[in-house]
Parts: sequence; structure tokens; C-alpha cells
Amino acid sequence: MKVTVLSGGVGGARFTRGLLALLRDRLPDGAGGTTAQVTVVANTGDDLWLHGVRVCPDLDTLMYTLGGAVHEGQGWGRREESTRTATDLAAYGLGWEWFTLGDLDLATHLARTSLLRAGEPLSRVTARLAERWRPGVRLLPMSDDEVETHVVTDDGTIHFEEWWVRHRAAVPARGFVQVGVERATPAPGVLEALTEADVVVLPPSNPVVSVGTILGVPGVRDALRATAAPVVGVSPVVGGAPVRGMADACLAAIGVTTQAGAVARHLGLRADGGVLDAWLVDDADADAVPALVAEGWRAAAAPTLMTDVPTTAHIAAAALALVDRAP
Amino acid sequence: MKVTVLSGGVGGARFTRGLLALLRDRLPDGAGGTTAQVTVVANTGDDLWLHGVRVCPDLDTLMYTLGGAVHEGQGWGRREESTRTATDLAAYGLGWEWFTLGDLDLATHLARTSLLRAGEPLSRVTARLAERWRPGVRLLPMSDDEVETHVVTDDGTIHFEEWWVRHRAAVPARGFVQVGVERATPAPGVLEALTEADVVVLPPSNPVVSVGTILGVPGVRDALRATAAPVVGVSPVVGGAPVRGMADACLAAIGVTTQAGAVARHLGLRADGGVLDAWLVDDADADAVPALVAEGWRAAAAPTLMTDVPTTAHIAAAALALVDRAP
Repeated sequence: MKVTVLSGGVGGARFTRGLLALLRDRLPDGAGGTTAQVTVVANTGDDLWLHGVRVCPDLDTLMYTLGGAVHEGQGWGRREESTRTATDLAAYGLGWEWFTLGDLDLATHLARTSLLRAGEPLSRVTARLAERWRPGVRLLPMSDDEVETHVVTDDGTIHFEEWWVRHRAAVPARGFVQVGVERATPAPGVLEALTEADVVVLPPSNPVVSVGTILGVPGVRDALRATAAPVVGVSPVVGGAPVRGMADACLAAIGVTTQAGAVARHLGLRADGGVLDAWLVDDADADAVPALVAEGWRAAAAPTLMTDVPTTAHIAAAALALVDRAP
Repeated sequence: MKVTVLSGGVGGARFTRGLLALLRDRLPDGAGGTTAQVTVVANTGDDLWLHGVRVCPDLDTLMYTLGGAVHEGQGWGRREESTRTATDLAAYGLGWEWFTLGDLDLATHLARTSLLRAGEPLSRVTARLAERWRPGVRLLPMSDDEVETHVVTDDGTIHFEEWWVRHRAAVPARGFVQVGVERATPAPGVLEALTEADVVVLPPSNPVVSVGTILGVPGVRDALRATAAPVVGVSPVVGGAPVRGMADACLAAIGVTTQAGAVARHLGLRADGGVLDAWLVDDADADAVPALVAEGWRAAAAPTLMTDVPTTAHIAAAALALVDRAP
């Protein structure tokens, strides 16, 4: 069984960890793993060059979460992290002090930068870094080309991380620009992972700046629309608010209501030119299901709060069941 | 009074600290500094790109030593240093684990890389970094162009740092190649600092790979030979051995005996096409003085072990006195 996940950071990583737990339980390989093959295509639109090193927040969150090294409470970054270098760096007064550069995380940034500067494409670099963490999935960046999400505000355009981390998305966003996306090509394996999948899952990642950015890479949307695999999404919006993060500010910027049904309709039904066949909402949004079903969606409600790994495995099971791909 | 120093790392930094102490004592500015202007031109041939960041060992040693942040026992790097990032980085198996990348030192490398990547030349970057450390001198890289000293061994050519740090100079060197030096131009201010100086000092730095590399930058040797200022050097060799480091291995590679007099003759008397007028040797090498004097040198013996700052100030005083520039 081949499962392909289009993921942002924390939400996608946690979902994928639950999915893997499910697959290891239902399709065990006898060695603690699973016979299923999971490919995760990660958003790289949040990436940035910071002080000369390449930071890939979503790839790192996936690697650390699936590799068992993530700071659980925070959802991103390394466990037992420290900021000795960053604290000293701040004394040089170069700015961006609000962006956490942990000492352990910095090792990953340096390793990545080392390999990138040696001429390796990000996809090979990612595979090399993942050898250390053994995430149990094939981890792919959406593209080897640099794509950076910028946010249009009334005071000018800033990098997504500046808007998200420094301003906590509190500065009104008028729109998002994925710089370089029109010239980007999907990383090796991305289109094949969509075409050859038995099921494609959109985890509860930010629909605008995570999933939306991946969908913006030329070829990805077409491959999703053409694949024989069903495509199922899990709503990142529960009860009219994002479960985590500030997706509401992102949705508002593009004129989409922060409601589970509205997000589904924004991503769209494949039959109508969109990218989804099915949409799993939280029990709190069960009242959105009948209308979606009436419009042709496969839709259902279930508990979707990813409180721990077993609970998240249940969510993954519900999503797969919705498109008849229960393992 | 204008003093220009051509410096490598530890030896040059310690000498300059003593020189500054002397000048603050003899030519005080009333605010804890000195009315003398000291310019240090630093060797950058040991610099390297490591894991995507630019490391400039000699500039850093000078900055930390003169800025009061150096690890005294070791002579280079920061006090109270740690290696949390480097230890984690080693788990990625990219090599160069033998090169210490301290957490605090890394902050300097990141700041430098940040500014370099923004397009600033190394000389401006160095001035910016020095604002934090207030070294009390004008600190200049020998060049804004990248020059890297490589070492020719029987098993191929390797970066100087690999030979020096990893192999402790124990692999026989057949020669040194300053990659890029023929296309390098002196950094802004370097030639003026030589031309306008009242005295030029070669501290007890490695005569081959520190001073020799600076002298290799086109224009520097000519400026030294043309300046009206006297040029005085302090021998880095005492009693037939380098005071510190492995300069003997460097001297052997270019066929120079590790003797105070031999080093002087290698650098050469200005009257004979060299770069020096005077040479201060250690008391242990006093027997080399008469021959040098007979050849036209101003030469003298004095205690030259830089055991502490006051002792080093005396050495600086002896060097300046040798060319009648006692402050």
C-alpha cells in the first residue's frame, strides 16, 4: 500500500506519525515497521536563508517528529534544545533575533547548508539528513528550487516567517506571494508519488501557506487531479478556528471563511476542478457534513484532535476509511 | 604615532595586546586608550568555508584576544566555550569533526556569513564585527578576496587547516600554495597603513603561512619595501624551535632552517630586496646577533616569551626601540 501525504509542519508531522502507527499496527513488516510505503511531500515555502544557512522549518519538523527527536510540547524543534549560539549572535545586532535558532537545530541547518553548497539538490540533501533520523517515510521537499512565501502587508512585503513568527500573524495580510513558484519544478519523485499512490492524504496542515504552496508548484495540482488514487483531506479548522497556528489569518487574507466546510470548498472537489474527493471534519463540525455530501463529497465527522499518537492513528484510520482505503 | 602590524593568529594577537598596553601606558589618551593608531593587517589564508559558514581563524583570534574574550589557556577561541552544535553536527557524518566549531565562535561565523552573503566585503564585515569587541586597533583582513593556503603533501593537496589541525603538521609538507593570491588585491587601507606608518612591526607570527601569505598579496611586499617607516620583526623561533605552533614544519617545507637568524634572512633585509630592517631575537639566540649586525641588520636580543601582558609590552618596547621608535 502506497500512501502519499502533502504536508506542512507540526500538524502534518503529527498526523503522519499517527498514520505510521496505524500502518505499523495493521500492515506490520515484522521488524517494527510497515509494509506500506509512505511518501511525505513537504512544503518548503517557509524556508529561508538566515545568517547564511538554509532553514527548512517543515522538513525539520517532519524529520524530528517522525525521528523521535521533536520537542513534544512545542511541536517543532529539538528536545532539550538550547540557544547558546543564538544568544551570542544577538550581540552582533544583525536582527532576526525573534527567530529561534536552537543549538541542536543549527546542526541540521549547517549540515544542510554544507551539502547544498557542495551542489547537492535539496531532495538529495533531505534524504541524506533523514538517514540519521530514520523517519520511516520517504521525505521529499515539494521542489529542489527555492520558493519563498512572502506576505503582502500594508507596510510592504515581508518573508512569511517574519509575519508568522515575529508578528504572530497579527499584522493584516493582504495576500501571499510564493516567490519563485512559477519557475519551480516538483522534486524528483513528487509527481510519481501522486500518480502511483493508492491514496493521497492532505493532513490538517495550513490550507493556504502549506498545502496551498505545494499545490502551487507547476504540475502538482494536475497530478493530483489525474491520479487514480482517491484524495482525502482532514480539516485543520475545528469549530470555526484553526486547531493550531494562525490559519484563520491566512484564510482571511484570501477571502475564505474559517469554517471546515469553507476550507474544503476552497480546496475543491476533484469532480469540479479541485483536488479532493473526501473531507474529514471534527465532530464539532458534524453539521457541515450533509451539505458537503449533497455537493458530491465523501464527508464524515470524527474526533480529530491529535492529542496523542493512538488518537491520531484513529484519525488517520477514519480518513482512509472515508475513501475505502482502510489498511 | 601610527603603528602597523602584519599578523597571524595567536602569536600576533598576543604581541599586539602587549603593544597596546605599552602604547596606553606611554601615549595615553586620557580615556584608557592611546593616542597612537594601531592597524593590524591579518592573514586570511587560513580562512575556509566550513558547513556553509566562513571561518576566519586569525581575524577571530585577534578580535577575541584584543577584545578580552579569548580563551587564555588555548590562545584562540572564546572563553567558556561549548560545542553543543558541533557535537550534534558530527552525527550527520559530514567530516571535519576535528575542526572545533564552538557554539560561541559559531555566532561569529554566522554573523560574518550573514554579512558576506548580503554582499559586504570582508573588510567591512570585519569592521562591523569588531564594533562588538572594540579591539582598540583598526583590524583589516589582508584582502577582501578569498585566498586559501593549501598544503602539498605526498598524498595530495589539502587545506591548510586540515594539515595543521587534523594532522598537527605531522604529514610532511612539500610546499604551500596560496590559492587565489595572485588575483587578490590588498583590502582597502592595507597599503596606506604601510605607507603612512611611523613603524611597521612583524610580530612573532608564522613566517611562512601567516606573514608569508600576507606578503604574497600583490602590492604588499612593494609597499613594505617602499615605506619610509622602519620595519622590525620579532623572531617566532627561539632556541631552534617555534615558541608555539609548528612553524618548524612550515620552514622545513620551504627549505629554511628553524633558527632565528635563518628566519630573518628568509624574510630578508630591505636593503637587499627583503622586507625587514631590524630583527629582535630571544636572549637564547643572542649569538645570532653579531652576524646579523655584520650583514647590515639592526638586531638585538631580549627576553621574547610572551608570558603575560606586561612582559609582552616590554618585548614590544624592545622591538620599537630597535628602530628608534620607542613611544
